[in-house]
Amino acid sequence: MVETKTAVVAFGGNALIMKDEPGLQEAQMAHADKLAAVLLRFIEKGYRLLLVHGNGPQVGNSLIRMEESVTKVPALSLDACVAMTEGSIGFFLELSFRNALAGIGDGRDVVTVLTPVEVSAEDPRIKNPSKPIGPFYSGYRADYLVRMFDWDLVEDAGRGYRRVVASPKPIRIVNEGLVRVLLEHAAVVIAGGGGGIPVTRDGQGWRGLEAVIDKDYTAALMSEVVDAELFINLTAVDHVSVDFGMETERRLEKITVSEAERHLRDGQFPPGSMGPKIDASIAFCREKGGTVLITSVEALAEALQGNAGTLIVPDEESS
Amino acid sequence: MVETKTAVVAFGGNALIMKDEPGLQEAQMAHADKLAAVLLRFIEKGYRLLLVHGNGPQVGNSLIRMEESVTKVPALSLDACVAMTEGSIGFFLELSFRNALAGIGDGRDVVTVLTPVEVSAEDPRIKNPSKPIGPFYSGYRADYLVRMFDWDLVEDAGRGYRRVVASPKPIRIVNEGLVRVLLEHAAVVIAGGGGGIPVTRDGQGWRGLEAVIDKDYTAALMSEVVDAELFINLTAVDHVSVDFGMETERRLEKITVSEAERHLRDGQFPPGSMGPKIDASIAFCREKGGTVLITSVEALAEALQGNAGTLIVPDEESS
Repeated sequence: MVETKTAVVAFGGNALIMKDEPGLQEAQMAHADKLAAVLLRFIEKGYRLLLVHGNGPQVGNSLIRMEESVTKVPALSLDACVAMTEGSIGFFLELSFRNALAGIGDGRDVVTVLTPVEVSAEDPRIKNPSKPIGPFYSGYRADYLVRMFDWDLVEDAGRGYRRVVASPKPIRIVNEGLVRVLLEHAAVVIAGGGGGIPVTRDGQGWRGLEAVIDKDYTAALMSEVVDAELFINLTAVDHVSVDFGMETERRLEKITVSEAERHLRDGQFPPGSMGPKIDASIAFCREKGGTVLITSVEALAEALQGNAGTLIVPDEESS
Repeated sequence: MVETKTAVVAFGGNALIMKDEPGLQEAQMAHADKLAAVLLRFIEKGYRLLLVHGNGPQVGNSLIRMEESVTKVPALSLDACVAMTEGSIGFFLELSFRNALAGIGDGRDVVTVLTPVEVSAEDPRIKNPSKPIGPFYSGYRADYLVRMFDWDLVEDAGRGYRRVVASPKPIRIVNEGLVRVLLEHAAVVIAGGGGGIPVTRDGQGWRGLEAVIDKDYTAALMSEVVDAELFINLTAVDHVSVDFGMETERRLEKITVSEAERHLRDGQFPPGSMGPKIDASIAFCREKGGTVLITSVEALAEALQGNAGTLIVPDEESS
């Protein structure tokens, strides 16, 4: 009997549009090819992959397109823009993974599924938009955008104004049952892109929200929902450190979930960066007994050999 | 045992952005709600639905956004734009159908799957772009666009210049096996949106194409692939006619596939309009024994009662 293990892989939209890149399609596709090449090693080790990609730079570009063309065609709202990036990024990734699989003679399927993700209408983060999104604007452009689109903008010292939106926590993958079904029939499933399309439900039914969901939390929820063995969270650094940037900085190779919680409480991981990644991992590790690997795309092949990255494991596996 | 029948439903992007509408999101969602309300009757009759939507006005708006913002962010190619509309239109439809099902206490799922559709690199239609897409341009704007994007543009008498792209025939739904799997687990599957994302395969693997696929042909292929009982093709008219616009005009209520072929050969159905709809239906009807219903959204409820629309049936069912 073939062993079937599932790994959920989270990575930012900046895996395809890297820092200071404009986002040329050819460049995004080339980055997707490289990502597929390294993740193929996990497939060869017997993992099915569920990819949860971010969309920061891509949805930023979508918003610029909406605002630049608003005098010609009506702008779509942020939930629809997230849905659009699930389409375009999913397409780039799907082609790269189809080609990577074909390259090793693996005829299995790759599939991208649109993923509405439920958030609570009562989530306090909805009333307090704080997630920066899109480009920086000059003061007069910011004034125009507030009048034109009723956006919330905040000033970022020295860099101009930036839109902020709500970023509620995901509470349910709306089509979670179908994601599980697809994982049984495909080598790679791309779902929850951009953190998923934020939707909420009331007496009138489902509706979308002008918000974005943190893909780390959505990926962690996916890991629980599909009973993954491994949750790989790809980030800019090769491993997690404590006392980051200090003389006492220490690289974490393998820690228990209790140690991770302690470091998080101690303020070792900054919010908006490593903090949410660790926070998102804890429930999957504690309640589902899953393993979390945090590393960079560059160090991933080494991490597969146990020579790079940071592992967070359940307490009973600490020894 | 519950009878499970499958109906494939094709409709244009103009079911959500109607003639002379700019494409406001609220309006698209309201049209989607109405479409869901009428198609719900087929679900209540025991059909699972596979929706294949077009994207003409939506991808036209996407192209305008790309061209208006190209000095700020890189434009994505047409295949990626189609993928984006599979995301946004899929999202609108999925919410409407989820709400329609919830309204009758049907807890089944609705799912949207990104759909690459294979075309042949040797398809002669690729070398001869002829499908008009996007808005009309003035002469000087057309000059600029040819230089900026290397587009093919043609003059349309009195209305200006318009981009033309290749429209190759679909030869395979790349993820057809997964579409079948999803249909077993959901009441409504949205797939092949915009006719599907055109891809082709060579020694280097899969790649996307700057092209669009006619959604009528993709929907007909889907009908064959999922062994549908019924292929509903929604269009602007309540029924098919012969001698259209002439004194001898005659409404077709129920014809055999052989009669349909004869009328097609006789030039009764104009190319770019009813012609492809009939042409696309023939193989499904002749080889799979399926039934085709051609009607409008407005007449669909009446058609379900047998009081509107045109049915094309296999020859043996003619009596």
